[in-house]
Amino acid sequence: MRETFHDQLEAIRSDLVDMSERVATAMARATRALLEADVSLADSVISDDEIIDETRNDLEERAFELLARQQPVAVDLRVVVASLRMVTEIERMGDLALHIAKVARLRYPESAVPEDFKSTFAEMGRLAGQVIAKAGQVIRTRDEVLARELEADDDLIDDLHQALFRRLVLSSHSIETAIDVTLLGRYYERFGDHAVSVARRVVYLVTGAYPETVAH
Amino acid sequence: MRETFHDQLEAIRSDLVDMSERVATAMARATRALLEADVSLADSVISDDEIIDETRNDLEERAFELLARQQPVAVDLRVVVASLRMVTEIERMGDLALHIAKVARLRYPESAVPEDFKSTFAEMGRLAGQVIAKAGQVIRTRDEVLARELEADDDLIDDLHQALFRRLVLSSHSIETAIDVTLLGRYYERFGDHAVSVARRVVYLVTGAYPETVAH
Repeated sequence: MRETFHDQLEAIRSDLVDMSERVATAMARATRALLEADVSLADSVISDDEIIDETRNDLEERAFELLARQQPVAVDLRVVVASLRMVTEIERMGDLALHIAKVARLRYPESAVPEDFKSTFAEMGRLAGQVIAKAGQVIRTRDEVLARELEADDDLIDDLHQALFRRLVLSSHSIETAIDVTLLGRYYERFGDHAVSVARRVVYLVTGAYPETVAH
Repeated sequence: MRETFHDQLEAIRSDLVDMSERVATAMARATRALLEADVSLADSVISDDEIIDETRNDLEERAFELLARQQPVAVDLRVVVASLRMVTEIERMGDLALHIAKVARLRYPESAVPEDFKSTFAEMGRLAGQVIAKAGQVIRTRDEVLARELEADDDLIDDLHQALFRRLVLSSHSIETAIDVTLLGRYYERFGDHAVSVARRVVYLVTGAYPETVAH
């Protein structure tokens, strides 16, 4: 019984890692779609989001079944509850990639991002790729050092996000561009926040305490 | 044992309702702070957010203890898991009220919202108050009709949110104002989304099926 339980829990963990890889792909494609005004890439992100949602439903159901049938206690219970929460965070990260792809699609054949903001978004996209990759690794390995690295990456996303607004205010872009850049910046920033939440849930499982809280 | 369990579950439900009332107050104050550039009201929202976070921690811990000690099954288990999720959603709604209060504070003694957008934000604030009040009532009464009404209210928030962008593009406001209005619109829109999620979790408990999914 216990072995079955741990096998099932291991399968959930492994599928969470796969799901994070799928979200990493979605985010990488969404960023490229945005910067290169590549509508077919945007469409692939939009259609693949359904797979992420289905994985979420499947994982939620399996975690719930595990609670119902195996009635885990102590650390095992914490792991299942944490998995339920992480799956929500990762699905939400997929939604944020979807939002970015939708903005790319909406402005096609133009790019929603003006030339002078492209390098910033390229960098935010690179960091977003890094935080989701690390979130997946943290789920897999429970490596606290990596979890801290992830938080440092997220701080860089936040810095870029703040700098974005300061530059935007001084620019002479249209209001439409200002709206796009504002929303896009927010999507990347939230993406980083969710990755941090995932990492913190893992650290909590390992250490029994959350790192000091970050307000957003 | 079972009676203790149901008492504790009932206490969690009742505290979720109280928490939603606290968030309703925060949102009402944040909207007034925003429209009237009332900095002391904004500050009260900012300082009270800590209480909402503490309530979240307390409720999470209690729901977790209930799982660990009472090992509920079937519907009881679903209710505890749903409570864990609803507390996350409601806490997030508190964060969104906090974000609005922070924008109000940042622009003080000016209002972040220009005159020609005040009526729209007043209406979004009114609807936000309505969805959080109904979310609390749905948790308390499990009334499906009310849950559907809440979704209709959220549709109105979404309509206002879309109209906001259309009008903003045609306006001659500064980029700073465009950024504020864009972010504020997004905060109200997300607030409505979370209320819908709460209501859907309750409907799921009652009917065993989620209403058809809404994409955001």
